[in-house]
Amino acid sequence: MLDDIRSQDIKKMSIGQLRSLADEIRSRLIQVTSNTGGHLAPNLGVVEITLALHYVYDFPNDKLVWDVGHQAYVHKLLTGRNADFDTLRQWHGVSGFPKRSESEYDDFGAGHASTSISAAVGFAAARDLLKEREDVIAVIGDGALTGGMAFEAMNVATHLGTKMTVILNDNEMSIDPNVGGMSQYLTRLRTDPGYNRMKEDLEVLLKRIPNIGSKMAEIADRLKDSVKYMLVKGSFFEELGFRYYGPVNGHDIEELIHVFENSKQFDCPVLIHCLTEKGHGYGPAVKHPDKFHGVGPFDIQTGALKKTSTQPSYTKVFSDALVELAKKDERIVGVTAAMGSGTGMSAFGKAYPARMFDVGIAEEHATTMASAMALSGLRPVVAIYSTFLQRAYDQLIHDCALQQAPVVFALDRAGLVGADGPTHHGVFDLSYLRSIPGMTVMAPKDEPELENMLYSALKYERLTAIRYPRGTGPNHPLNEEYTLLPYGKAEVLREGGDGTIFSIGAMVVPALEVAEKLAAQGTSLGVVNARFVKPLDTETLFACAKQTGCVITMEENTLVGGFGSAVLEALNDAALSCKVLRIGIPDAFVEHGDTNILKDEIGLSVEKMTARILKFMGRK
Amino acid sequence: MLDDIRSQDIKKMSIGQLRSLADEIRSRLIQVTSNTGGHLAPNLGVVEITLALHYVYDFPNDKLVWDVGHQAYVHKLLTGRNADFDTLRQWHGVSGFPKRSESEYDDFGAGHASTSISAAVGFAAARDLLKEREDVIAVIGDGALTGGMAFEAMNVATHLGTKMTVILNDNEMSIDPNVGGMSQYLTRLRTDPGYNRMKEDLEVLLKRIPNIGSKMAEIADRLKDSVKYMLVKGSFFEELGFRYYGPVNGHDIEELIHVFENSKQFDCPVLIHCLTEKGHGYGPAVKHPDKFHGVGPFDIQTGALKKTSTQPSYTKVFSDALVELAKKDERIVGVTAAMGSGTGMSAFGKAYPARMFDVGIAEEHATTMASAMALSGLRPVVAIYSTFLQRAYDQLIHDCALQQAPVVFALDRAGLVGADGPTHHGVFDLSYLRSIPGMTVMAPKDEPELENMLYSALKYERLTAIRYPRGTGPNHPLNEEYTLLPYGKAEVLREGGDGTIFSIGAMVVPALEVAEKLAAQGTSLGVVNARFVKPLDTETLFACAKQTGCVITMEENTLVGGFGSAVLEALNDAALSCKVLRIGIPDAFVEHGDTNILKDEIGLSVEKMTARILKFMGRK
Repeated sequence: MLDDIRSQDIKKMSIGQLRSLADEIRSRLIQVTSNTGGHLAPNLGVVEITLALHYVYDFPNDKLVWDVGHQAYVHKLLTGRNADFDTLRQWHGVSGFPKRSESEYDDFGAGHASTSISAAVGFAAARDLLKEREDVIAVIGDGALTGGMAFEAMNVATHLGTKMTVILNDNEMSIDPNVGGMSQYLTRLRTDPGYNRMKEDLEVLLKRIPNIGSKMAEIADRLKDSVKYMLVKGSFFEELGFRYYGPVNGHDIEELIHVFENSKQFDCPVLIHCLTEKGHGYGPAVKHPDKFHGVGPFDIQTGALKKTSTQPSYTKVFSDALVELAKKDERIVGVTAAMGSGTGMSAFGKAYPARMFDVGIAEEHATTMASAMALSGLRPVVAIYSTFLQRAYDQLIHDCALQQAPVVFALDRAGLVGADGPTHHGVFDLSYLRSIPGMTVMAPKDEPELENMLYSALKYERLTAIRYPRGTGPNHPLNEEYTLLPYGKAEVLREGGDGTIFSIGAMVVPALEVAEKLAAQGTSLGVVNARFVKPLDTETLFACAKQTGCVITMEENTLVGGFGSAVLEALNDAALSCKVLRIGIPDAFVEHGDTNILKDEIGLSVEKMTARILKFMGRK
Repeated sequence: MLDDIRSQDIKKMSIGQLRSLADEIRSRLIQVTSNTGGHLAPNLGVVEITLALHYVYDFPNDKLVWDVGHQAYVHKLLTGRNADFDTLRQWHGVSGFPKRSESEYDDFGAGHASTSISAAVGFAAARDLLKEREDVIAVIGDGALTGGMAFEAMNVATHLGTKMTVILNDNEMSIDPNVGGMSQYLTRLRTDPGYNRMKEDLEVLLKRIPNIGSKMAEIADRLKDSVKYMLVKGSFFEELGFRYYGPVNGHDIEELIHVFENSKQFDCPVLIHCLTEKGHGYGPAVKHPDKFHGVGPFDIQTGALKKTSTQPSYTKVFSDALVELAKKDERIVGVTAAMGSGTGMSAFGKAYPARMFDVGIAEEHATTMASAMALSGLRPVVAIYSTFLQRAYDQLIHDCALQQAPVVFALDRAGLVGADGPTHHGVFDLSYLRSIPGMTVMAPKDEPELENMLYSALKYERLTAIRYPRGTGPNHPLNEEYTLLPYGKAEVLREGGDGTIFSIGAMVVPALEVAEKLAAQGTSLGVVNARFVKPLDTETLFACAKQTGCVITMEENTLVGGFGSAVLEALNDAALSCKVLRIGIPDAFVEHGDTNILKDEIGLSVEKMTARILKFMGRK
């Protein structure tokens, strides 16, 4: 069925057909992601919800906003992207997230959590002002609901009293199991015996009404569906001013359609609380929803990952080092924002449960809470993806730097991340962190240096960020013992008379390769591992500049205000005349796809960099 | 009494003495702020709460976090800062906000809203881990409660189940009256007749118990106070896992002391809902709480402002222009985050109530909502202070730039703001905005240029930020008709053969003054008004650089990654050899005080800049 289906066809289908289609969709999801990797478990969880939405609503006229967006695969399959779906997450292929330029059915791009209700409020407010009549729907998980923005948006939705629907997809997890008062509250709603009793009472009551005419029966039937969900109020949401429906079985497509249709009658914000199972319909994913949240290529029969590297990722290196360091320093505590597995913080949590703080999807809170803990004498290490820490830029300035709080931020997924694309590339951090007074910013060249940086950051007793890439590094052997890195000092790796590559983080090893290649061609370049973006080792920089008069900077960060700009500022302010070539991410969003392809596209492959340097030096 | 009082003395006072002290404090607040200006109304509202806190808790052992912090004056008067209080908000004087370096009683610095509960959770979690026993209290207004971070923090507080107290200071306002579902909910709590009936019932019930012994009477009395507030649950907070007490009369010091003491028995997060009146005890402030929220020097008798300038501020110029432009373009809508009066958005709201969206203290939501409105065909103008837009850095990238949404951001209070100090200076925006792909960043040199920039930004149909300073500008005559500024083009204001000042925003007029001074001394400098930080007018820049080989950049923004860095990047990437002197804010937090003093301190006064340029050019 999937081959020819379009959103509008769904409306004509019977419940039986929809159920068959759901099966077909699940097979397709499993088949494609087993090759490409992707967010399988979240999509298996929303098959019925997505079908019911397309059954009840009229897309693309009605507007649909997916929170985070990694659960929009089913929606993509139903809106003309089934044929291309094999290219999922690949260079020039279908994006793993909603993307406006990809389809008129993707109303709002996503990738970060908790934005959907805000966007929906904006769409609804615009509709009211423009006197249009379309429906606006946001689909948000219970995980994303802990992000403060979602609350801000609900507060405004009820202030405006605008007609809109929030589908709360409650699977009791974000990537890891959810935490917090909100999660406990949802559990009470799910398990409240009052709810089920009320529902049964109503049905009994309706059945008892004797000899009702057909008109009355019809009304009673309609009433049953709309009333049964209203009787047990979700008082939290009701107090905020939402009309609450639920909990609804998120895998019962008939029930979903009834509830969605009923909810359309209300001219106000409505929240429909759907219970779903992450990974529903595929055994291995139900059993390991965290592993199959975002999964690499896998064997469909066994669920086993196809590619299992024995090489430790940067995440693993960080995680192991933190657990090790925490043995000797009881002041170390761990903070993560619902990214325990992704950041490697889970291992710390297992080793030291009382010292581990998973605050849910709440980067702002994580940052300010960590600052207060640091001021109390603890030494918090906050592990957050580079792109997600953008959420806490103000808190870094206002609650950490201004308070001089010695918090260590471990920024995983810095640089290009590949298949997840522009919402997940961590390519702004060197710029936004460097502008903060008193912030120390480091990036390791390899795995053992990450260990030493974490060790050193905790010794410096300063507000520090360490940024490192997604995946594996050059696989250099780990330390037997950690070394304290001299504060603010770079490391000279290679001498060269014709120029110096001043490189940072993941670009240091490629810099060495470039230098090697160029040496073979008769151009002698030194290579410096800057280690610190801030404070910059100006002593080493100036010595190189004076020696060769030619500096090449390399970074996996935007060229706007990043590491190369720091080098320019330092050289300029010292009135040192020196040719500088800055290599980094150009000032544009980088698409999704294999990291090697992306790097080549933007001139960051070793070959392209070699050619650029030769040209810059006038050697070719 | 105030002269010799210390926090610990409060505990020994009778209710009568505390009431007298409250009167004395009010007089002192009015007397000092009538000279220095300051946040009078919020402080008049928390006199009794602050006294009761110092009566019940043991500071500085117990920890106290003030949200936003502009209501901490009373706390300062009680903690050894009465003698210096006449220096409030002045250079090297008492800060208008809590400041760790100022007193051991200031546990956490503040200035931005909604951070207090997060900091309190951090302090409480650290206390639990360190096996200490101090109490932790956060005081937060109902306005700041709409900020998402506050919700994130409450969610974590109940997850941890840690002992802490949140004092909700509910005055039904932030600066302007509050908006949103939360505000409506608090109103219901305030006015619910069920609450009062329940309270009366309980008292009647207790009175009826016959012949109870003294022990029983004591228990009953204790019960009465603790139970009466518990009977009517604040179900929103209770559902989140907080123990709710309230509403309590926030000006009844006896009642406050009872409730605070009672609440200490609970080993979990407690929220005490206090009703206060902004400006309480001073007629003019009660009558005009918005005007007296943050007020300049005023006449105590009449409440009239001492200094009334007829010169329109940048805020007024923006506000008038927006109202004017909106006449001819119905697509224009206004968005503000609880800053209607501060940003001048209120006038727009009066003129076009249906097109005005005050979302409460919720910069993240404001940004994403505006994006969706822009994508629907509207043209939102979002007015936010520069320093507060830091909160929405991720949403600017992810929800605006990546979606290519033509939103116009009007950033008031950019540059140094003076008396409010480091939390309010808007000195990072050029750096953080410039790093965002597709963002247009402008700053006007004077009032008529602000009008033209707003007009032009709406014509460009691009994501744009216009940043302009607090207060008044050079008072240049406003436009009869608006002019479309050529996109990305600078304006050459003065020719000069020895070098060129490339200046932006509020630094353009001082640049002309510097050039004038230097001309008198025989040094001929050109002056360019850059207008655009992004895209930078490289054509004009390169022409100047080639002509004179000497460029001086001037900006009221951090030198790290700011406008001057953009100039360096452009010159370097074009391989143009040119001497560059960058003048701007050094890489450190700038304290509070008169803006002219601050500028002189950091070398941005016309005289200091003139001297620096002469030295740079080797002329003196």
